Amino acid sequence: MSIKDKLNDWIQNNEQRYIDFLQKLVQQPSTQGNEKGVQQLVANFLHELGLKVEMWDLDGDRLKKHPYFYSNRETFESSPNVVGVLKGTGGGKSIILNGHVDVVPEGDHKQWDHGPYSGKVIDGKMFGRGATDMKGGNIALLMAIEAIQALHIRLKGDVIFQSVVEEESGGAGTLDTILQGYKADAAIIPEPTNMKIFPKQQGSKWFRIIVTGRTAHGGTPYLGVSAIDKAFIVNEHVKELEKTRNDRITDPLYDTIPVPVPINIGSMNGGDWPSSVPDVVQLEGRIGIAPGETMEEVQQEMEDWIKTLSEIDPWFQEHPVKVEWFGARWVPGEIETDHPFVASLVNNFVSVMGEKPTLVASPWGTDGGLLSQVAETPTVVFGPGITDLAHFPNEAIELEKIFEAAKIIAATIVEWCEED
Amino acid sequence: MSIKDKLNDWIQNNEQRYIDFLQKLVQQPSTQGNEKGVQQLVANFLHELGLKVEMWDLDGDRLKKHPYFYSNRETFESSPNVVGVLKGTGGGKSIILNGHVDVVPEGDHKQWDHGPYSGKVIDGKMFGRGATDMKGGNIALLMAIEAIQALHIRLKGDVIFQSVVEEESGGAGTLDTILQGYKADAAIIPEPTNMKIFPKQQGSKWFRIIVTGRTAHGGTPYLGVSAIDKAFIVNEHVKELEKTRNDRITDPLYDTIPVPVPINIGSMNGGDWPSSVPDVVQLEGRIGIAPGETMEEVQQEMEDWIKTLSEIDPWFQEHPVKVEWFGARWVPGEIETDHPFVASLVNNFVSVMGEKPTLVASPWGTDGGLLSQVAETPTVVFGPGITDLAHFPNEAIELEKIFEAAKIIAATIVEWCEED
Repeated sequence: MSIKDKLNDWIQNNEQRYIDFLQKLVQQPSTQGNEKGVQQLVANFLHELGLKVEMWDLDGDRLKKHPYFYSNRETFESSPNVVGVLKGTGGGKSIILNGHVDVVPEGDHKQWDHGPYSGKVIDGKMFGRGATDMKGGNIALLMAIEAIQALHIRLKGDVIFQSVVEEESGGAGTLDTILQGYKADAAIIPEPTNMKIFPKQQGSKWFRIIVTGRTAHGGTPYLGVSAIDKAFIVNEHVKELEKTRNDRITDPLYDTIPVPVPINIGSMNGGDWPSSVPDVVQLEGRIGIAPGETMEEVQQEMEDWIKTLSEIDPWFQEHPVKVEWFGARWVPGEIETDHPFVASLVNNFVSVMGEKPTLVASPWGTDGGLLSQVAETPTVVFGPGITDLAHFPNEAIELEKIFEAAKIIAATIVEWCEED
Repeated sequence: MSIKDKLNDWIQNNEQRYIDFLQKLVQQPSTQGNEKGVQQLVANFLHELGLKVEMWDLDGDRLKKHPYFYSNRETFESSPNVVGVLKGTGGGKSIILNGHVDVVPEGDHKQWDHGPYSGKVIDGKMFGRGATDMKGGNIALLMAIEAIQALHIRLKGDVIFQSVVEEESGGAGTLDTILQGYKADAAIIPEPTNMKIFPKQQGSKWFRIIVTGRTAHGGTPYLGVSAIDKAFIVNEHVKELEKTRNDRITDPLYDTIPVPVPINIGSMNGGDWPSSVPDVVQLEGRIGIAPGETMEEVQQEMEDWIKTLSEIDPWFQEHPVKVEWFGARWVPGEIETDHPFVASLVNNFVSVMGEKPTLVASPWGTDGGLLSQVAETPTVVFGPGITDLAHFPNEAIELEKIFEAAKIIAATIVEWCEED
C-alpha cells in the first residue's frame, strides 16, 4: 500500500473522533477577546499529538511598531496564539499550516435555526458559527498531522501548525507568529474555498473620500453647490480608475473573474436637512489590491487619480476632494501557479477527488498575504468550508469535504517535506 | 396736509416708542412652546390701542382634522394666538395684517456678538433672534394701526391684526386663525423681504426616496447591485423632472429667478460597510410648489415620474423606487400682480421711498399660502427685515426700514379699507 493510501485509510478510520473534536471547537464561542477557551482545547490536542507546543498572548507592544499591524485593539490579554511544531529530521522543506480560531459575531440569534454555537450535525453537515470559517479547515490540518504521526512517517522538513486569532480583525495573530520567528518554505491556509485552490488572494484597504459643496436654502439651490451632485462625479471617476487597474490584469487565473481588483463604494452619507443644499458628502469603500502590488503604490495611485478631478470640474480646484485611509488592510497573497507546491497540491487533489481542481484567484483577503509578503512564505489557500455560508446565520460545513481536504493536505505535506 | 402726509408725520414722531417696544419683544425669547410671554405683551399693547382682542391657545383637536395641519406637536397649551380687530363702519374691504412671533432656535450662543436676545441697537440696527424674522415687521404693522387710530381715521372695512405662533413649524398658528373664522379681502405679511414685494410665494413639501440594490461582498461587487449607483440614476431623473416643471413657468415675475420651483436633494444616506455593496439608499429633499398648484397634483406628478424609472433601467421594474412624503408642507401663496391691492401697495411704496419697488416671486414659503388657499384671502408678502440674516447668528434689522414699511402699509390700509 502506498503512503498515500495508508494516509487515506487512517483518515477514513478516524472520522468520528474528529467530528467530535470539531463539535467541541464549534461549541466553544471564540469571538474577538474570547479565544482563550478554544485555544486551550487546541493546545491540549497538540500536546497529545506529541508536537512541541508554544502558546502566548499576542504582544501588542511589538505589533504596534509593525507597519502591517492593524487591529481595533492594542492589548491582547487572554488572546493567545498556539503553535505546534513537528520537528523534521533536517534538510527538507518546511511547511506552515495556518488556521484562525476567531469567529465573527453570530448576529441575530433568531436567524439561527439551531443556535449559533450548536455544533449540530444534520445530513452530513455540521452547523455553527466557525464551522466553515474556519474550524472545519483547521480540523483537516490536524487530521493530516495526526495521520502522519500515527503512521510513523518521519519528515525531513518541519511541519508548523499555527492556530491564530485576529484573522477577522486584521491579521494581528498571524503577524505575531511572524514576529515570534516563524516562517517556512510554503504554507496552506484552509479558509472556506469550496475546495477551490487559490494561488492568489486579493488584498484590500479601506478608504474614505470627502466631497465638499456649498450650502444654500432648498428654495434657491442654484445659490449653492450640491455635494451630492459632486459626489456622483467622484463616483464615476473612481469607476474609471477601477477600469484602468483591471485592464492591466492579464493572468489567466482571473479569466472567470469579471473584476479582479474592484473598487467598491460601500457607503455614501451627506447632507442633513431636506431644505438645504448638502455641503459635505462622505464616501467609504474598499479598494482591491492585486498580488504583487504594495499598499503604498495603490494608495498613491488612488490619491493621484482623485487629484485629476480638478481637470474635470473647476469646482474641485478650489475644493479638492480628500482621500483618507483607515481600517483594516488585507495584504494580497500569492504563489506562482506553476510552483512545485501548487503542482503537488493539484496532483493530490486529482488523486483523492478523481477530477481536476479549479484554480482561481480569490476575491477576498486572508492571512496568506502576511505570510507571502512579510514572512516570505509562498501561500496557497485551499479548504473544505462553504464560502457563501461564512459570516451568515446557519453557517455550516460538509463533513465529507473536511476528510477529503485532510487526505489531499496530508499527501501534500509528505511530498513537500519529504520522507526521511 | 393729506392723510398720507399725516400718517407719515405721526410715524416719524413716534419712532422711539416703537423702538422700545420692539426691544421688549426681541428680549422676550419665543421659541416653540415659549410664546406665551411675548403674546401677552402683544395682547396688552392691542388692548391699549382699543382693539377688540382675542387670545386663545391653539386648538389641537380641530387642527389635526385639517388636511393642511402640520406640526411636530399636537397640543398647544400656553401657545396662544392673539388677534386684535379694528372694526370698520361697514361696506368696505377688510384686511388681515399677519405676523408670527415664534422664532427659530438661537443656535450656538458663542456665535452671537451680543447674545441671542440682546435687542441691542447699534448704528441704526437692532440685534437679536426675531428682530428681522419677524418682530420688526410686526412692529411696522402696529405702527400703521396706531397711526390710523391716533389720527381718528375711521375705516369702512375691518382691520384684523394677527399675532401668530408656529409659522416656523408648519403654519398651525395661522391655520387656527382661519379655523377660528378669520378671513379677509386681502392680507399683508411683513416677513423679511428686504423691502421687495412678493405677490407669489413658493410652496414646498418634503419627500423621501428609497432606492434598493443587492448586497454582495466588496471583493466581488459584480455579484451585487449598488444602490448608490442606482441612486445616481434616480438623482438625474429627478433633475429632469425639475427641468420639465420649470420650463412651464412663463410668468415674468420669475424672470430674475434661475429656477422658480426647484427640487432639492438635501441628504443621501446609504450603505454601512466599506466592504459591502450598499443595498439601500435613502434620499430626502424638498420639492417646490408653484402658486396655483395643489400639493396633491405635485405629489402625483413626482410619483408618476419616479415610476417611469422602470423604462430607463430594468432593475427598477423588479425593485421599484419608493416615494414617501413627510414633514412640513408650505402652501404656495399668490395674489395677481395687477390686483388693486398690489397696485396700491406699489404706489405707496413709490411715494414713501421715491423709487419703484422690486416685484418678484419669493423662493420660500410663508403662512401666506394658507391665507391664499384655505382662507381665500389674497396675500402679499412685504417687509422691512433683512432676508439673509434670518435664522443666522447676529440676526438684525435696520430700524429705518421698519418706519418706511409702516408708512407704506398705513397708507395702503387706508386706501384698501376706505375712509368712512
